[in-house]
Amino acid sequence: MSEKLTPRSQNYSQWYQDLVINADLAENSAVRGCMVIKPYGYAIWEKMQQHLDKRFKDTGHVNAYFPLFIPKSFFTKEASHVEGFAKECAVVTHYRLKNDPNGGGIIVDEDAKLEEELIVRPTSETIIWNTYRGWIQSYRDLPLLINQWANVVRWEMRTRLFLRTAEFLWQEGHTAHATAEEAVIETKQMLDVYAEFAENILAIPVVKGVKTANERFAGAIDTYCIEALMQDGKALQAGTSHFLGQNFAKAFDVKFTGKDGKQDFVWATSWGVSTRLMGALIMSHSDDNGLVLPPRLAPIQVVIVPIYKNEEQLEQISSHVAPLKKALEAQGVSVKYDNRDTHKPGWKFAEYELKGVPVRIAIGPRDIENGTVEVARRDTLEKSVYQMTDLDVKILHLLENIQDNIYRKAVDYRNANTYKADSWDEFIKILDTTGGFIMAHWDGTPETEQKIKEMSKATIRCIPLDTPEEQGKCILTGNPSTQRVMFARAY
Amino acid sequence: MSEKLTPRSQNYSQWYQDLVINADLAENSAVRGCMVIKPYGYAIWEKMQQHLDKRFKDTGHVNAYFPLFIPKSFFTKEASHVEGFAKECAVVTHYRLKNDPNGGGIIVDEDAKLEEELIVRPTSETIIWNTYRGWIQSYRDLPLLINQWANVVRWEMRTRLFLRTAEFLWQEGHTAHATAEEAVIETKQMLDVYAEFAENILAIPVVKGVKTANERFAGAIDTYCIEALMQDGKALQAGTSHFLGQNFAKAFDVKFTGKDGKQDFVWATSWGVSTRLMGALIMSHSDDNGLVLPPRLAPIQVVIVPIYKNEEQLEQISSHVAPLKKALEAQGVSVKYDNRDTHKPGWKFAEYELKGVPVRIAIGPRDIENGTVEVARRDTLEKSVYQMTDLDVKILHLLENIQDNIYRKAVDYRNANTYKADSWDEFIKILDTTGGFIMAHWDGTPETEQKIKEMSKATIRCIPLDTPEEQGKCILTGNPSTQRVMFARAY
Repeated sequence: MSEKLTPRSQNYSQWYQDLVINADLAENSAVRGCMVIKPYGYAIWEKMQQHLDKRFKDTGHVNAYFPLFIPKSFFTKEASHVEGFAKECAVVTHYRLKNDPNGGGIIVDEDAKLEEELIVRPTSETIIWNTYRGWIQSYRDLPLLINQWANVVRWEMRTRLFLRTAEFLWQEGHTAHATAEEAVIETKQMLDVYAEFAENILAIPVVKGVKTANERFAGAIDTYCIEALMQDGKALQAGTSHFLGQNFAKAFDVKFTGKDGKQDFVWATSWGVSTRLMGALIMSHSDDNGLVLPPRLAPIQVVIVPIYKNEEQLEQISSHVAPLKKALEAQGVSVKYDNRDTHKPGWKFAEYELKGVPVRIAIGPRDIENGTVEVARRDTLEKSVYQMTDLDVKILHLLENIQDNIYRKAVDYRNANTYKADSWDEFIKILDTTGGFIMAHWDGTPETEQKIKEMSKATIRCIPLDTPEEQGKCILTGNPSTQRVMFARAY
Repeated sequence: MSEKLTPRSQNYSQWYQDLVINADLAENSAVRGCMVIKPYGYAIWEKMQQHLDKRFKDTGHVNAYFPLFIPKSFFTKEASHVEGFAKECAVVTHYRLKNDPNGGGIIVDEDAKLEEELIVRPTSETIIWNTYRGWIQSYRDLPLLINQWANVVRWEMRTRLFLRTAEFLWQEGHTAHATAEEAVIETKQMLDVYAEFAENILAIPVVKGVKTANERFAGAIDTYCIEALMQDGKALQAGTSHFLGQNFAKAFDVKFTGKDGKQDFVWATSWGVSTRLMGALIMSHSDDNGLVLPPRLAPIQVVIVPIYKNEEQLEQISSHVAPLKKALEAQGVSVKYDNRDTHKPGWKFAEYELKGVPVRIAIGPRDIENGTVEVARRDTLEKSVYQMTDLDVKILHLLENIQDNIYRKAVDYRNANTYKADSWDEFIKILDTTGGFIMAHWDGTPETEQKIKEMSKATIRCIPLDTPEEQGKCILTGNPSTQRVMFARAY
């Protein structure tokens, strides 16, 4: 157990905060609600970006970049969008500072007031659809499959590193289609891309589903999502994919001429994931010793620590390490040989455990005599002695094994913490003891959903796509229901 | 000559604008001074990013992310920095909008006024050095070698796509060192990285030099730069690398304990290149037919256009194209097979010429009979007939040849337009006829530099690093000078 971390059992929220800080992932900045993503945290985010970007391009998307600022009036054009987004946001009102004539340092120059205020983008549907109007004339211009990697700002009052910050990094896909059917296929395709990425790369099992009207994106016809279960029994929405219908095309007058020569409004989707995934990653796998990283996301996959008493021993060890490092790197494994003499092996062991490096190899003079090394895996903390022969191949297998094991463990946890509740008492009891995903009947009305939320702090995370029809009674009202929906308290 | 472009000889500035728009690189947005980088332009920027990012990492740097917003007071901490940067910038004053009670749409909520205004970063030295204070205690924490990819905002009154925009994308490196010597070595190393990247990837020859005091970055001890010569005889600063001394460490109180146990302020560098490089790229190589891209930056390196009259012919051609495409792709070449039936071959030829695709292969039924293809290279517009045998190898060589040729042509142009001037009349005559880089003597005073600028609109681009000592007389004042400096009118 790391001395630097509050144990999860004692205070899960404090453990999370301690871990983010001590594993050098991120920290709060001097600017309220904005974080600094430190190099180690950013390296993990970069790996997420690479895996996602490849998937976007493999499915035919291209990247572009749209302005940071959005004219205030744009938000009023899509009626429901303004309610959802135009409120808590950073507003640029001036474009110049000047020296205070009274010697009070620099002040805002009131002569440089903008005619129309600019909003720092909280999401880019409006500015993008305003731009698409110039790009789309005919069915030949469709589909338009564009993604943007960007920073966005939503003025959050209560912030938590990665999970909820005023500024965060994300990608936002914005596509335009000739038919509703094609846009729905795109919406679902991107949900599948997110789910596959979450499971195969982040090693986080997710439930794919659709949001209820209350929880829908402002301006969407349907919001699809992937929901993950954190170790404290709370849910985390890990990605969303929206079918926007013709709402934004109508708001920004984006029409196209079809093959039949007729004009129609364009159909839209948008979809995004953010640095929030860093929070999901941490809370899915990590333990009281620190971060646990799936190998496919680990900036350092293997660390090699020499155990030596003098320069001669170090040299001998280094000459054994060099070919191993080279062999692993040739196979795309990132290896760090930590031969710093400023820190002792014990300190290094704790440090790499805290930082979640999947495999640690320790090697000393006795190992060299025996032709062995000591291999420790981060996920189970098990240590084994490996023969030097074909060590690179064994390490490659071990990395795959760790990736699988981390995922398997998360699946087991999720399955063990997915419950059915058939009465209100049962529902509340689960929430107040283990937490978890709760499959329960709901009468389908927004009013009941709202009441349940107020009474239990649990929300309908989604209506899972694979839920079978089943007759039942709403846990709150007793009214008839045709399928269970998935409830949880959530981040 | 493309019908879509104003010829360069007629109006260079209009040609540039036409090219950026028609080659689908970027366009102006609804937000004053902010551009939309379109997918094709962004794909080129992504390639620049990949090449640069690899070089940064190969030289030991890591990426991180710092806040978009900077508290206003931070700018006043470094005396010269505030003059240079805190004036023309976007100022966030409020964090909420609300519905106008009088029904006038949404308005700024005056109750949500920030206590201290936030500035959208024009550059990040201040917020980063404020953060480094917490990261650096001892010499063990040094050097700190960090880079950030980000958007920045400088409120420019006159904007031009890529060259000068209110918002632009860039990278900014910020490093911290224990000694001045080490920081200077870093500053020069990154200058060399930029120069090598410009020459080998962008195919743009650059002059490495140091700026005069007048042209220095606000807060720097020395500003190094790379200067490139555009086709219209104007210079463009393509990258800068600053030795910041202890200025920011002192402003933000960043000290470290040395090996000797003594405390000292940390030494700093910063360095950056931006989407301005897109402008440099366009204006270095392109012609009246459109964009000319060096193969190492081209999103599509080879386009294959089938010439066919019926479905059967197309099928036959496609079966010949498939193995060629596969062979090229296996060697890392990006190939597009444009078999769209919505556009004719002539239209496609013009389109890919406009977009600067380095190699175009046309293949028709007669080619298949003869075992040949027609190959057109974009840089020289030459067409040749190639035998099908080993075509992939020939195309690979051709791509290398094109990269070299584009660079060689730019070097020749630069050399032919680098002049010596030994009198004021000569100096002005060159500026008013050919333009170009002018090596001339200057008496070394800021006053003379300023006067020359006012009288000629030319500035000292840099004091080239390889300039030999040479006795001479200042072209304006006749006062003694010990070396020539490089003048030009500049973007």
